[in-house]
Amino acid sequence: MTQSHTDQGQYTPTPDDKFTFGLWTVGWVGRDPFGDATRAPLDPVESVHRLAELGAYGVTFHDDDLIPFGSADADREAHIKRFRAALDETGMKVPMATTNLFTHPVFKDGAFTANDRDVRRFALRKTIRNIDLAVELGAKTYVAWGGREGAESGAAKDVRVALDRLKEAFDLLGQYVLDQGYDLRFAIEPKPNEPRGDILLPTVGHGLAFIEKLAHPELVGLNPEVGHEQMAGLNFPHGIAQVLWHGKLFHIDLNGQSGIKFDQDLRFGAGDLRAAFWLVDLLESAGYQGPRHFDFKPPRTEDYSGVWSSAAGCMRNYLILKQKAAAFRADPEVQAALRASRLDQLAQTTLAEGETIADLLADRSAFEDFDPNAAAERGMAFEHLDQLALDHLLGAR
Amino acid sequence: MTQSHTDQGQYTPTPDDKFTFGLWTVGWVGRDPFGDATRAPLDPVESVHRLAELGAYGVTFHDDDLIPFGSADADREAHIKRFRAALDETGMKVPMATTNLFTHPVFKDGAFTANDRDVRRFALRKTIRNIDLAVELGAKTYVAWGGREGAESGAAKDVRVALDRLKEAFDLLGQYVLDQGYDLRFAIEPKPNEPRGDILLPTVGHGLAFIEKLAHPELVGLNPEVGHEQMAGLNFPHGIAQVLWHGKLFHIDLNGQSGIKFDQDLRFGAGDLRAAFWLVDLLESAGYQGPRHFDFKPPRTEDYSGVWSSAAGCMRNYLILKQKAAAFRADPEVQAALRASRLDQLAQTTLAEGETIADLLADRSAFEDFDPNAAAERGMAFEHLDQLALDHLLGAR
Amino acid sequence: MTQSHTDQGQYTPTPDDKFTFGLWTVGWVGRDPFGDATRAPLDPVESVHRLAELGAYGVTFHDDDLIPFGSADADREAHIKRFRAALDETGMKVPMATTNLFTHPVFKDGAFTANDRDVRRFALRKTIRNIDLAVELGAKTYVAWGGREGAESGAAKDVRVALDRLKEAFDLLGQYVLDQGYDLRFAIEPKPNEPRGDILLPTVGHGLAFIEKLAHPELVGLNPEVGHEQMAGLNFPHGIAQVLWHGKLFHIDLNGQSGIKFDQDLRFGAGDLRAAFWLVDLLESAGYQGPRHFDFKPPRTEDYSGVWSSAAGCMRNYLILKQKAAAFRADPEVQAALRASRLDQLAQTTLAEGETIADLLADRSAFEDFDPNAAAERGMAFEHLDQLALDHLLGAR
Amino acid sequence: MTQSHTDQGQYTPTPDDKFTFGLWTVGWVGRDPFGDATRAPLDPVESVHRLAELGAYGVTFHDDDLIPFGSADADREAHIKRFRAALDETGMKVPMATTNLFTHPVFKDGAFTANDRDVRRFALRKTIRNIDLAVELGAKTYVAWGGREGAESGAAKDVRVALDRLKEAFDLLGQYVLDQGYDLRFAIEPKPNEPRGDILLPTVGHGLAFIEKLAHPELVGLNPEVGHEQMAGLNFPHGIAQVLWHGKLFHIDLNGQSGIKFDQDLRFGAGDLRAAFWLVDLLESAGYQGPRHFDFKPPRTEDYSGVWSSAAGCMRNYLILKQKAAAFRADPEVQAALRASRLDQLAQTTLAEGETIADLLADRSAFEDFDPNAAAERGMAFEHLDQLALDHLLGAR
Repeated sequence: MTQSHTDQGQYTPTPDDKFTFGLWTVGWVGRDPFGDATRAPLDPVESVHRLAELGAYGVTFHDDDLIPFGSADADREAHIKRFRAALDETGMKVPMATTNLFTHPVFKDGAFTANDRDVRRFALRKTIRNIDLAVELGAKTYVAWGGREGAESGAAKDVRVALDRLKEAFDLLGQYVLDQGYDLRFAIEPKPNEPRGDILLPTVGHGLAFIEKLAHPELVGLNPEVGHEQMAGLNFPHGIAQVLWHGKLFHIDLNGQSGIKFDQDLRFGAGDLRAAFWLVDLLESAGYQGPRHFDFKPPRTEDYSGVWSSAAGCMRNYLILKQKAAAFRADPEVQAALRASRLDQLAQTTLAEGETIADLLADRSAFEDFDPNAAAERGMAFEHLDQLALDHLLGAR
Repeated sequence: MTQSHTDQGQYTPTPDDKFTFGLWTVGWVGRDPFGDATRAPLDPVESVHRLAELGAYGVTFHDDDLIPFGSADADREAHIKRFRAALDETGMKVPMATTNLFTHPVFKDGAFTANDRDVRRFALRKTIRNIDLAVELGAKTYVAWGGREGAESGAAKDVRVALDRLKEAFDLLGQYVLDQGYDLRFAIEPKPNEPRGDILLPTVGHGLAFIEKLAHPELVGLNPEVGHEQMAGLNFPHGIAQVLWHGKLFHIDLNGQSGIKFDQDLRFGAGDLRAAFWLVDLLESAGYQGPRHFDFKPPRTEDYSGVWSSAAGCMRNYLILKQKAAAFRADPEVQAALRASRLDQLAQTTLAEGETIADLLADRSAFEDFDPNAAAERGMAFEHLDQLALDHLLGAR
Repeated sequence: MTQSHTDQGQYTPTPDDKFTFGLWTVGWVGRDPFGDATRAPLDPVESVHRLAELGAYGVTFHDDDLIPFGSADADREAHIKRFRAALDETGMKVPMATTNLFTHPVFKDGAFTANDRDVRRFALRKTIRNIDLAVELGAKTYVAWGGREGAESGAAKDVRVALDRLKEAFDLLGQYVLDQGYDLRFAIEPKPNEPRGDILLPTVGHGLAFIEKLAHPELVGLNPEVGHEQMAGLNFPHGIAQVLWHGKLFHIDLNGQSGIKFDQDLRFGAGDLRAAFWLVDLLESAGYQGPRHFDFKPPRTEDYSGVWSSAAGCMRNYLILKQKAAAFRADPEVQAALRASRLDQLAQTTLAEGETIADLLADRSAFEDFDPNAAAERGMAFEHLDQLALDHLLGAR
Repeated sequence: MTQSHTDQGQYTPTPDDKFTFGLWTVGWVGRDPFGDATRAPLDPVESVHRLAELGAYGVTFHDDDLIPFGSADADREAHIKRFRAALDETGMKVPMATTNLFTHPVFKDGAFTANDRDVRRFALRKTIRNIDLAVELGAKTYVAWGGREGAESGAAKDVRVALDRLKEAFDLLGQYVLDQGYDLRFAIEPKPNEPRGDILLPTVGHGLAFIEKLAHPELVGLNPEVGHEQMAGLNFPHGIAQVLWHGKLFHIDLNGQSGIKFDQDLRFGAGDLRAAFWLVDLLESAGYQGPRHFDFKPPRTEDYSGVWSSAAGCMRNYLILKQKAAAFRADPEVQAALRASRLDQLAQTTLAEGETIADLLADRSAFEDFDPNAAAERGMAFEHLDQLALDHLLGAR
């Protein structure tokens, strides 16, 4: 099967692709733990225009991305007005917003789980204020990354008590949204560490479990980030599959990461390319309808030309992988290989319809007459299947 | 404060300490991916006697540890009879049992989630058979480690479908236990990888979330293993705290691991010593009542003298850490340090009793009049607190 | 630029490609730390024939792969004779051989650095014996993987003393090769851990440094393995670049690894695909002339059909990546992008020809008149360059 | 054996202990990738006084720690003068200095290996300028951490060419030191990643190897940092043992790290406590004479009270561990255990004095009559030995 790679237009994004970017991504000025900013601040209004030109569907923001922390009310309104005008001019949407509960030093020990009660109250107020704005701007999802909820040392945080406080916060925010009649859902973003030595709810699994204990679990889902799970060495597509299985993929942060190390936030497609392929395959085949949100940091080696190149690369790579995943699934040889690997049998229930435990216990073919040695000789044919996938990814078939 | 380290007797275990060992731990013959066995097989009866002499409370087993895979029924009964006699002689208990669904090649692609349906049925039958034996021997907990439930390549396993099969299996096993009127609960043991490239339910978080979707979630909890979470770089005491918060710490596997690498199964106390300290502190202060179960592998450099030395070390280290954790919590300077770090404030609810969201929004001291810069200047005093902990651990105060 | 992906023949290996396989790779029976063998043993003679049919150039072996440990002399000769006949029939070469100093329990604490002196002497004799055979069979490289040279606990090995013993071993083996007039060089294979908790010479860097202290450093180089460096989270192409810089890339083990975890030995191309691309780009552009040796383990899910499929995939993926790397380097837009990223300036010496330190100190443009702020504004254009590489890899240009 | 833990005075540092601190450690203001500074800048003069009061021996500095980047010459002299006065008042020494080649955006692509040649020249001039100051202030060691020498993407850096540039820089700096007749040696500080995706010379091994290729290898050694090697999952005491074996431990950076993740720079004793114990045991038993230099970051949760508490903890923990290591080595039961583990045999050469390869080959006891199965039965007794070490560490014997 030959792909028509010559038609480059197929990789040009349009708003229908639902690509969104955080203002803080293209707007990252390149300050890292060992170095000062390499780029001048970027006006959010310019970001909206540039991203619209590149084919994006929308932008997202932390309150402080749009309105500097501590702005007077009048300044705040002016910032919002300019931003709204840019959205109107470009048709860009704001499907998601979030709160910055990590930059200001007041959050050094956390926000919703800070040991200091007044910090927790301030964090709730700051969040509620931005929820109002998010709804005003049309957001349907409110992301909560608790990057400062954690500890560096063992006695500094009583984790069970901290989870009580975290639940208290989400229950309260959920109640607020219900009280206001907002059409808004929360999406928790897990991360194992950095900036804290260890962060609460370190993986999508911990986040899913936590949600079940909330007063309104239906209001809360996840916003998994590629690099965050990979920082724990976890298989990201597997994690997303479980999140989908729980019906909790409310939003997603796409980026790249080269294994277990500091949070790299590379552009989507950089880092683990095969995981990116399986992720797109999963999102597209599962019918995920939400935004494809890029949460990346253009490397601080780049000037703004490089920033836009990097942002364009995120979208281009998604579209390339989407096309390849579709071709993989449509390939008759792949379909035969999936059957040879008995994926069809996995889709069958283990007990037949109506079969009871008693029936299973009475079925001698299941145990007494089953020959495990003979059964073990059946090859799973996974290597052939995986090579077909690699051939598709590489454009070698 | 000086500790009376001279009284060594305080570190001698008794059955009241509820220390248990898997037969497969002291019985591990030292076969690893690159080398043959270095020790001759150990008779389970001898293990029972030796562990009893060392002060253990009980033993645990996989079906195949006690009864070689494929044994004829008469041989099976003989193995069980000898084992039961050893238990009777020593007073040792069997609080937990589990199924070996990973050694025989028939399980090469998994057991409850094998693509082959007949393998899944065989796995269920093998499990049910051993559940009956576990209950006969008095076990209250049945552990399920799905070490082969996973994949090495992306298309080999449809994870959402595999989770359906996994749920089907646990729902069926739960129903069986209910039908039989067994007093037995299940404990799922998560692991991120090895022997599979990636394993389903890779962390305690994923396991907790999965349980919520079962037909009888009350029957199913977790059996976290120190090294398994540490293989994902996660903070084990933090993970256990969340498991306790969910009421799901049904059992625990204690051992040691030196960071993110292959599964080492070192004796408890080896590997990350500070995590071991905080773990014991947590288990003891949370009132965990279950067995302290060691799931370790005495290094293959050791002969049986080293094996028993290693087993004794597991218990000794737990008792040393238990004493130190108690002294840490009782130390008035520590208590003052905890207050200085405002752990007491963390224990207070963020909203006062009866306070509503409206009240919070109306509280100007929470936002409008709150001075984040001033608040940020308060040091958390965590370094002093952590040094006190380290001093206790090192016996330096 | 459109690649002619339709011509599949271009990815069919021939002996000119110099692909070699260890007998222990396709011959791995699938025994892992948690499971028994899933495949019957493979006759080395069959491996030679099958690999020849697939287009390989040669095979490599540990002594015990060919001649079971402890074979009587007559049996040994018979094994060698059959093997040699297979080589003659197929034209397959044996460019490398190595010693198994890890499977037998006598090596449980190491071979050249075992605490037991008699084990060290036995290890030397076992090695010398196989060196003779290696030379007889035409090998030019003798690999030394010290997988058991290490420790699990701190006092068990005095590392400085162990390095003395390791140097003693290599000095002695080097002298033997010189005395015999053999045309044979040694290639040390580093690995950070597994099967030992920590292994001596854990990375290519440590190996390179060690070699410099040997009596005959010119006789000893490295045999880096993709997965081994990646198990330490290191960039494999960067490591190989340094090995080449030292003139020490005597051999290479190609395979795949999915990040920091147990040693996976996936087929080449699986695991970190982008690292594989940059590796092939480097090997080909650096003019590496040695064998492209695959040291992988076909997953134990596979029967022998899957084994040969996996082996074929290793070679196919190398050839695909080789073609893509060549196209990348030949692409005029890539060449322009490399200049835009000033790779040409990196190739210039920092001091001009003949320039002295005094000259540099006198050059006001280098410091006093240099405007770092202005210089810092120059973007490096790395994101555009990297996207071009990704486009080539994906066949999207 | 009971330790007299009551005498707390034994853990109070004095200048004889040779503890030193970087100005940038206690002076770190707590700016991290996600957050602003939590502490006000600290006057270097105050640091000198406070550290002297705590019992330190000296301080170290980057040029920009003492003299803000871009200071006019007169300001520069004023800064130096005040600093020198503080040294004189307190008797504090400056045994080491280094260059900041990473904070200013001009170094975003590196310094000695920046693609831009003018940046490389500027970096050399900046370094030479501070070398002069270092020597003036009495430093004998000049550290070089090449934190920006690296890349995030594959084509951005030709590593072999970059190593040429790195060699050029060190050769030139070495020549400068020789020309000036300075009594100064260089110490390269390896790190695997962060802030760059991958850094050149990622481990001590790579650094040792690189040094051998320099024009004046005798002038250049290493400055290993605990956390940097642990970020690659490597055993730090093993690495230091190899550095000592090469005679290249010119300086050392002591701190703490909790496994493979972002660079934590915890206080010494936090993180991997057992590795810290074995490290101190090694440094003390190997007779390392250089400064015990702490390169840590007091967590940003701390105010200055916490900063000084953290700094004091570094020294206290070293002294506690030093006492424990000495007690461990002096314990007769430990000495017996070391013999039982045959560490004495490891210290013997494998060939007897005067023994030749021919002799070894003729020694039938070494191979023909050696019984590997019998030899394999000898236990190594490492678990008992390691438990003795743990008992000492915990103060439990």
